[in-house]
Amino acid sequence: MLATIIHGERDIRVEEVTDPVLRTGRDAVVRVVAACVCGSDLWRYRGVVPVPRSTPIGHEFVGIVESIGDDVTRVKVGDFVVAPFYDCDMTCINCRNGVSTSCLEIGWWGGRDSDGEPVNGGQGEKVRVPHADGTLTVVPGVQETSPLVPHLLTLADVLGTGHHAALSAGVRQGSTVVVVGDGAVGLCAVLAAKRLGAGRIVAMSRHADRQQLAREFGATDVVEERGDEGVARIKELFDGVGADCVLECVGTKESMDQALRSARPGGQVGYVGVPNGGAELPIRAMFGSNVGVRGGVAPVRNYIDELLPDVLSGAIQPGRVFDLELPLAETAEAYAAMDERRAIKVLLRP
Amino acid sequence: MLATIIHGERDIRVEEVTDPVLRTGRDAVVRVVAACVCGSDLWRYRGVVPVPRSTPIGHEFVGIVESIGDDVTRVKVGDFVVAPFYDCDMTCINCRNGVSTSCLEIGWWGGRDSDGEPVNGGQGEKVRVPHADGTLTVVPGVQETSPLVPHLLTLADVLGTGHHAALSAGVRQGSTVVVVGDGAVGLCAVLAAKRLGAGRIVAMSRHADRQQLAREFGATDVVEERGDEGVARIKELFDGVGADCVLECVGTKESMDQALRSARPGGQVGYVGVPNGGAELPIRAMFGSNVGVRGGVAPVRNYIDELLPDVLSGAIQPGRVFDLELPLAETAEAYAAMDERRAIKVLLRP
Repeated sequence: MLATIIHGERDIRVEEVTDPVLRTGRDAVVRVVAACVCGSDLWRYRGVVPVPRSTPIGHEFVGIVESIGDDVTRVKVGDFVVAPFYDCDMTCINCRNGVSTSCLEIGWWGGRDSDGEPVNGGQGEKVRVPHADGTLTVVPGVQETSPLVPHLLTLADVLGTGHHAALSAGVRQGSTVVVVGDGAVGLCAVLAAKRLGAGRIVAMSRHADRQQLAREFGATDVVEERGDEGVARIKELFDGVGADCVLECVGTKESMDQALRSARPGGQVGYVGVPNGGAELPIRAMFGSNVGVRGGVAPVRNYIDELLPDVLSGAIQPGRVFDLELPLAETAEAYAAMDERRAIKVLLRP
Repeated sequence: MLATIIHGERDIRVEEVTDPVLRTGRDAVVRVVAACVCGSDLWRYRGVVPVPRSTPIGHEFVGIVESIGDDVTRVKVGDFVVAPFYDCDMTCINCRNGVSTSCLEIGWWGGRDSDGEPVNGGQGEKVRVPHADGTLTVVPGVQETSPLVPHLLTLADVLGTGHHAALSAGVRQGSTVVVVGDGAVGLCAVLAAKRLGAGRIVAMSRHADRQQLAREFGATDVVEERGDEGVARIKELFDGVGADCVLECVGTKESMDQALRSARPGGQVGYVGVPNGGAELPIRAMFGSNVGVRGGVAPVRNYIDELLPDVLSGAIQPGRVFDLELPLAETAEAYAAMDERRAIKVLLRP
């Protein structure tokens, strides 16, 4: 089959690799219907995170179940399924606590499963799925040609991650919200905040196309300024003190700093941007203003049951973050388009 | 009148000073019925925080209103009142948001009011109270000889601060809780967690008398170990992963580290220990485990309405943290007793 391999900085190739097979009775093999490129994939593409060896890449996919192990009971051959950006058993204490990204048997696409065995990346034709009963969510009645496919694909990561930012920041009916970051996750965070009933949502963005989509997703205001000026604009909008909830969807020291300073005293930052640059959190400033910080690797598997009905009904259309669609063979171009910000997020069709 | 002045490291004296007078129409003057020494007062006493000049000290008191300014409407001469550890207007946006410790007109006992004018410390015979209508809570029908006085005095700081730790950590019905710190605030945090319905509460303490009080306040378990061993014991108690909520009531790098590592994935640390030692928070570890951190200078004024009925009814008896009572003249001995851990918390009677 074909799969995407990253060999090093800016070296992405689609190559012929061995087809996956069932390794344990709990596995399934899924034929990928749609995959995509994540902002976090770009860290390795750009060389910010090293690539010590050639490795399969991609962690978001939806597909059709092709085969299942003897112990799989909830998933059947032919089912249309959504996978989260990791595999998990959904039975351990952490999964039951709602934090499947801390599953005691977690595995990572393109990396290793919980037994230390390699698993495929999502940007390929097929994927072996460990803990198939826990990992996969069956979506009945969906065909691979359905226009719902891009929307369903966002359940694998960006929609659930935006939702996690909103929940972590404590967004509820009437909250005032600021979203830092206008990538696919930031835009989904706007959508999630709106869905949770936020009263006012500021998107911090300098790109006209992203501003437009943010407004369509529920942003009531756009702030283009950054740093001190951005913080001043936010305070001006919210009683001189800042917003109830700030959703940090970037992961740099600068973006976290801006998020912390945009929250009102007693407010909360929900963060989902993978922290880069070794920044730590300034506890004394947080202590003085009672600004909380909560977030992390989003347990999107736990959110699918809640979000799926709104995706199926069309109440939310998160798949609009895909503004470019390419065949799998052109994955390298997909990375380049996102790297150069020519695309917000690229959908790949094997 | 007599008031306590700190002149430098381990130099606490009760001295004759000028009686306070009303400065604005919003002021009251309160005759102090009971005051006390706070763990945070010990930072200056021990020389950990410098004392650049002689200054009045003490920030917890209850008393009787002796005079009021022309604009005061909610407080009357002769009322028994509780003051929080700061003064606040309770009308600004931050007070209305529940965060009166970020009041736009905040002032600090023993320091300055919002106009930059000096205010008395709480460890003295009388205090000028700015924003009397906002700052003071009237407790009808209480005499200065009432056995309720010690319990009411905890509303000035330690009970509300323990409650803030519990709320900040998200304690609710059935939560599993760990309390780091067995000072008066830690003990009140145990009480607050119990009051909020925690299912299991671990007090981390090495002192038999404090362990005993913690158990009487609602602790179900005591852990004496610290550091790696303490964390291992906590994980052992809670499914191998840690507790839902950890209440950090110390403020050192070591105690925060222990708190963060005692929380289960997806758990939350509520912290109220004033951060000392310049520690910052390890964002990458927090991100990986989805452990949130929330807390700060407790807005105890906002909590008095909720906590007062339980104090008046005797449902909670937070004043049991006072295990020594001294006349105001012996304030220096009160500091020494707390410094040497001969007392948990000392009540002072002018």
